Amino acid sequence: MKYYAGIDLGGTFIKCGIVDEEGHILSKEKIPTGRERPYGEIARDMAQLAAGLAGRAGVPAGGLTAAGIGSPGIVDSARGIIVYNNNIGWKKVPLAAEVRKHLGVPVYATNDANAAALGESFAGTAKKFHSCVFVTLGTGVGGGIVADGALLEGNRSAGAEIGHMVIRAGGEKCTCGRKGCFEAYASATALIRQTKRAMEKDRASALWKIASTLDDVDGKTAFDGARMGDRTAEKVVKNYVAYLAEGLTNLANIFRPDAIVLGGGVCAEGEALLAPLRRKLNRMLYGGTKYAPVELLAASLGNDAGLVGAAHFAQQRAEEA
Amino acid sequence: MKYYAGIDLGGTFIKCGIVDEEGHILSKEKIPTGRERPYGEIARDMAQLAAGLAGRAGVPAGGLTAAGIGSPGIVDSARGIIVYNNNIGWKKVPLAAEVRKHLGVPVYATNDANAAALGESFAGTAKKFHSCVFVTLGTGVGGGIVADGALLEGNRSAGAEIGHMVIRAGGEKCTCGRKGCFEAYASATALIRQTKRAMEKDRASALWKIASTLDDVDGKTAFDGARMGDRTAEKVVKNYVAYLAEGLTNLANIFRPDAIVLGGGVCAEGEALLAPLRRKLNRMLYGGTKYAPVELLAASLGNDAGLVGAAHFAQQRAEEA
Repeated sequence: MKYYAGIDLGGTFIKCGIVDEEGHILSKEKIPTGRERPYGEIARDMAQLAAGLAGRAGVPAGGLTAAGIGSPGIVDSARGIIVYNNNIGWKKVPLAAEVRKHLGVPVYATNDANAAALGESFAGTAKKFHSCVFVTLGTGVGGGIVADGALLEGNRSAGAEIGHMVIRAGGEKCTCGRKGCFEAYASATALIRQTKRAMEKDRASALWKIASTLDDVDGKTAFDGARMGDRTAEKVVKNYVAYLAEGLTNLANIFRPDAIVLGGGVCAEGEALLAPLRRKLNRMLYGGTKYAPVELLAASLGNDAGLVGAAHFAQQRAEEA
Repeated sequence: MKYYAGIDLGGTFIKCGIVDEEGHILSKEKIPTGRERPYGEIARDMAQLAAGLAGRAGVPAGGLTAAGIGSPGIVDSARGIIVYNNNIGWKKVPLAAEVRKHLGVPVYATNDANAAALGESFAGTAKKFHSCVFVTLGTGVGGGIVADGALLEGNRSAGAEIGHMVIRAGGEKCTCGRKGCFEAYASATALIRQTKRAMEKDRASALWKIASTLDDVDGKTAFDGARMGDRTAEKVVKNYVAYLAEGLTNLANIFRPDAIVLGGGVCAEGEALLAPLRRKLNRMLYGGTKYAPVELLAASLGNDAGLVGAAHFAQQRAEEA
């Protein structure tokens, strides 16, 4: 059995796990990122954390085959360089090489959404499928595409920016500069904006009982209101689901994957979100659902998807090397 | 040197060529499809045409390694079955097996837009690139995706339906049942509809000098009017280019290919179409053009793309087998 370290770099925490070649986590831990520090210190912490966890998992010294890092931002996976990370404020940081210096095994890096996609595909909800599109609904809409077990990263790993697919030309402004991006309608941020707008228009809505001020609105508010039977909340949810379904159907028609996997906080709604989405997707899917159906699933690894995927990414790259 | 037959099946003509392993066409010919006939007869014609052309090209008897067919509709490429072809009226036709019976070599089949994509990627305008998205602007909007030299066909070859990506939710009705598909804005059919609508609203437009009745409008009319300086025509072209750019930028952000290749009749406009499209694409591309630029190119193989690609598809599958 071979063992890999999977590292999930976030703006607040660094999560690390020792993962075997079948995707089982043997040990894991998280430490604060301390993102204001020089990257060299952060890289050293990553290596120490991985080495310590390997020992704790009973992996003998020198028993780690490789390590993988999932990082936010644009990551040049062929070179292990964090090209641009808005979150931590990095530009062209040779993170993989830096961690390798301390850890002494090959280190690889990929984008965090790609890592999560690979994790769900290899060891999570999409394990039995050949191909999947992973869509994470958070501050933005991130994505990862897995075909025949491998990531489709695009030229210099700059692809899979599925949040920046316009679904309503001329619509909501997006942070990327375009108007009408999927992200501007389907992210948790977008849902919160939509909920606030609806509340401002309807002072009598039960939504005001769930969130007493607009600042208290989160991605759950509208779903909670809809469960209480509030008409305004129902409309917000219906509208959100409709746009989300448009984007997911686009991805289904473009990739025709075996499955679409939804991750991110909004997914905690479970079937309240998935059931109506599935109906819409199946109704809109090009050519219908008989010939090549597309499953719609919730992610199952939660916060571990990133580190499991990062470890598997390292496994794939180490095997190719 | 190995030789392959490439067959491009259309509703009106069957085109066939003998293609060497480097993508050069040694001989080619087209014959009427006679689509009302049983598929067995059409398959026999395909085999006879290929065998005859091989002889004419000086390929010795038994010198063909394999044959490939590009067919409109949904093609299950793993089984060589035409699942559904609206154009010829076929359902579940085992075309590859039927042609093989007569030709005596392995026969493979894929969708015609996929074949054209592979042709342009292997021997055409995208030859020097690793990955490309091929977009054909005709009656509909078809597509083919090539990554590292291989087609991305999706589950049961049902993917790459890029025309059925909604770019304006709630917009123009599409033949697929959704509203606002890329195809409903960017196909030649859509351009003709947009031109006619503009003419109906402006009886003084110079477009009426180019097309004296609405029935005379084609995909060239608006571009011709714009070249004459007609304001209404310029608006039609500007609007068409804007929607086309939205869809192409989506594909660029999703796949981040080295190149996007445009094919189909509308492409005859050349730089009148490509130059403004390129400006828009470069302005909207996620993360800008510095890190991983995306080239926008016109297809270069014209009507031969399908048969060259079909032959190369056969080459790839035969090498895998």
